[in-house]
Amino acid sequence: MQKPSLPKGTRDFSPEEVQKREYIINILKKHFSTYSFHPIETPSFENLSTLTGKYGEEGDRLIFKILNSGDFLKKVKPEDLDANPASVTTKVSDKALRYDLTVPFARYVVQHQNEINFPFRRYQIQPVWRADRPQKGRFREFYQCDADIVGSTSLWQEIELIQLYDACYTELGLGTEIHINNRKVLSGLAEVANIQDQLIDFTVALDKLDKIGREKVIEEMQQKGISEDAIAKLSPVFDIKGSFAEQTEALKEVLSTSEIGLEGIDELNFINENLVGLNSADLVLNLTLARGLEYYTGSILEVKAKGVEMGSIGGGGRYNDLTGIFGLKNMPGVGISFGLDRTYLVLEELGLFPDFDDSKVKILFINFGENEARESIKLVQKLRGSGIQSELYPDNAKLKKQFSYGDKGGFTHVVMIGGDEIENQTLSLKDLKTGDQQTIEQGKLVDFINELS
Amino acid sequence: MQKPSLPKGTRDFSPEEVQKREYIINILKKHFSTYSFHPIETPSFENLSTLTGKYGEEGDRLIFKILNSGDFLKKVKPEDLDANPASVTTKVSDKALRYDLTVPFARYVVQHQNEINFPFRRYQIQPVWRADRPQKGRFREFYQCDADIVGSTSLWQEIELIQLYDACYTELGLGTEIHINNRKVLSGLAEVANIQDQLIDFTVALDKLDKIGREKVIEEMQQKGISEDAIAKLSPVFDIKGSFAEQTEALKEVLSTSEIGLEGIDELNFINENLVGLNSADLVLNLTLARGLEYYTGSILEVKAKGVEMGSIGGGGRYNDLTGIFGLKNMPGVGISFGLDRTYLVLEELGLFPDFDDSKVKILFINFGENEARESIKLVQKLRGSGIQSELYPDNAKLKKQFSYGDKGGFTHVVMIGGDEIENQTLSLKDLKTGDQQTIEQGKLVDFINELS
Repeated sequence: MQKPSLPKGTRDFSPEEVQKREYIINILKKHFSTYSFHPIETPSFENLSTLTGKYGEEGDRLIFKILNSGDFLKKVKPEDLDANPASVTTKVSDKALRYDLTVPFARYVVQHQNEINFPFRRYQIQPVWRADRPQKGRFREFYQCDADIVGSTSLWQEIELIQLYDACYTELGLGTEIHINNRKVLSGLAEVANIQDQLIDFTVALDKLDKIGREKVIEEMQQKGISEDAIAKLSPVFDIKGSFAEQTEALKEVLSTSEIGLEGIDELNFINENLVGLNSADLVLNLTLARGLEYYTGSILEVKAKGVEMGSIGGGGRYNDLTGIFGLKNMPGVGISFGLDRTYLVLEELGLFPDFDDSKVKILFINFGENEARESIKLVQKLRGSGIQSELYPDNAKLKKQFSYGDKGGFTHVVMIGGDEIENQTLSLKDLKTGDQQTIEQGKLVDFINELS
Repeated sequence: MQKPSLPKGTRDFSPEEVQKREYIINILKKHFSTYSFHPIETPSFENLSTLTGKYGEEGDRLIFKILNSGDFLKKVKPEDLDANPASVTTKVSDKALRYDLTVPFARYVVQHQNEINFPFRRYQIQPVWRADRPQKGRFREFYQCDADIVGSTSLWQEIELIQLYDACYTELGLGTEIHINNRKVLSGLAEVANIQDQLIDFTVALDKLDKIGREKVIEEMQQKGISEDAIAKLSPVFDIKGSFAEQTEALKEVLSTSEIGLEGIDELNFINENLVGLNSADLVLNLTLARGLEYYTGSILEVKAKGVEMGSIGGGGRYNDLTGIFGLKNMPGVGISFGLDRTYLVLEELGLFPDFDDSKVKILFINFGENEARESIKLVQKLRGSGIQSELYPDNAKLKKQFSYGDKGGFTHVVMIGGDEIENQTLSLKDLKTGDQQTIEQGKLVDFINELS
């Protein structure tokens, strides 16, 4: 007899966990909808050719491929057995599991371009799969929650997306810092200092300024081969502080000779100046933010939760060209992603999930035998018809067993209908929290419970 | 440049389709919850060994296997290239996509048996994948919506599940026939007539009684090798009619020598007699119902929509042993499944989906330039804060283009804030249905819209 287990990196979700995950997802959906984003869904697997070559060599390796049906070995030749496995993959597999939501979205936009009302505001909440080495907080199956707007280069959309982050996390009870950078500013810095090839080394080292201090940061930059001259040119960046506007003002001087850099500053300022009505989020200029440099061309965003140590819980940015890979040109856009698993962990750690059980009446009918159950099921049916969660214990088991089921199951009330109660058309209602018990006419149960909830 | 396409048997869902699917799913979830079922989720892929051998040889073939990562060919030997592919599968794949929700549920129950409060009422709404030949209404990725209760043999649960079907389909506006049969009755018929090996042939032929008439049915039975003697013994079944109780009464005579058959009759009667409060569903005794004979041991259920030609839109039954395959004995249960795709098609065909757009205000702000947009985005933000879907057109495009976007996008109102309106702190609100236009103070917009909706 096999002992069942799960593939590594995958998880079961218990009722309690599903409830918590849906709590988050429903809040996201509510605000996505108020912000006028529209849901789409794409299939779990795509043609392998749709996915390969989009995520780099490492990404291609981490895509889960699906074995062709039937005689999957028919194209494999004996010499293939000694070849590089990657080169044989397409002979045994022509489909693969979704690796992210962006490439399927790009495919969707191209395939449905004639039905879409551009600018297209879409959201998508679906699982993705990666053959990554599993570790704490990293799984092989996990949900992505993405909101993107394609078909316009307007910076008002960055403002909306920042407001959307704020709206969602505020309702979840979570204070956040929304870090923003701009690809053009990074390009400008690289241009000014002539460190195009060392840009990432520069930002990685700069990111440690608070932790290890100016000297060590400069040391690290030197070790990475960044020239003294470049470091000198960029050193004013080390001292940038003050308000968002003061920081961009100082940056403007550093970037005064870089057209693209100054454009980036203008974009940052436009967003900061026009961003109104944030509730619990702070906008933070963060020059070390360098995610997605391969595809982001303007704004870069990342969200960190306040009050807890947990990398980013969301991120996104602006791209010039979503769909060029599939032959549709001039499709700029901007998008953000919410990290469901990380957000879950943060809410758990900070105790921010509501007490779902507390807010809801849940009634167990004790089963005293067939006749009694017959009376009970009628009332159960009436309660359910009024939207009240209720349940008849299915068997005439010992009372202790039935009550134990009620306790463990989080029921708020127990109803008992025995012979006397049938005769009098009454019932005994016991409040499991207070222990109080009272007799009620059967016909008045629904109203009575409705007044409780 | 590749032209993107989808793997056969898979689908994109547009915003409109997602909305309709979620409409159905949310109604199911609401009633699942009122009926005290708890949601679980299991991973999309399981260990291959968890799935194989559970669905028969044909089923095993239709399971989508996932190619092992890395050097997936390392266990394949040259002679394997000429072998039966099925025998090589486990050398290149140790994981596979979920084929249904039942086997993963069984695994879940075994793995989590110490955390579960039995009888366990679980529901699960997730996609499954089958490498079936795609055809109208049959896809390679589709959702199953299952509700099961395990840990009790009580027939009250059948009653609840029938009521649950009724509650869901009633709210969806759909009249249904819920067909019921009992495995024990079928066993009894087989026993009485000694046709254990021809039971399916018998029910398949019997199913055609209304269409082709008694003589042709008997002819078909004879062709299938059912003896004259057996047909004679079972012939009273051809004439069974009347109410549910009259039918079971007549069946009782046919089955008078079969203990198990009579047990089945008692179960059917218990369910029929105690079933109260159906709204739009009729319970129909259907002896030709023979689904899931490999695992159903008691009640067998199937739902058909009234007023439309469309096989079954749901089905289920009782099983003695859910988890024996994974080493946990004595886990009886009963479950039902809702067919999401079929239900969708039926609602579409009968025009039963509500007009979602009709019930909801949706406001587009026209973009007249930076200053005007700055005023507009503040109001957009306020409307969204009050839960009203609204949106600023991102670019200062031609009015015609902006209004065309508003028309296609299903907006109910357009707001225009130009120079005059900024000065007077007013706005022009245009109702896109009536064409009426009026001037409103900016500060009163939210209240005004709230009164509309």
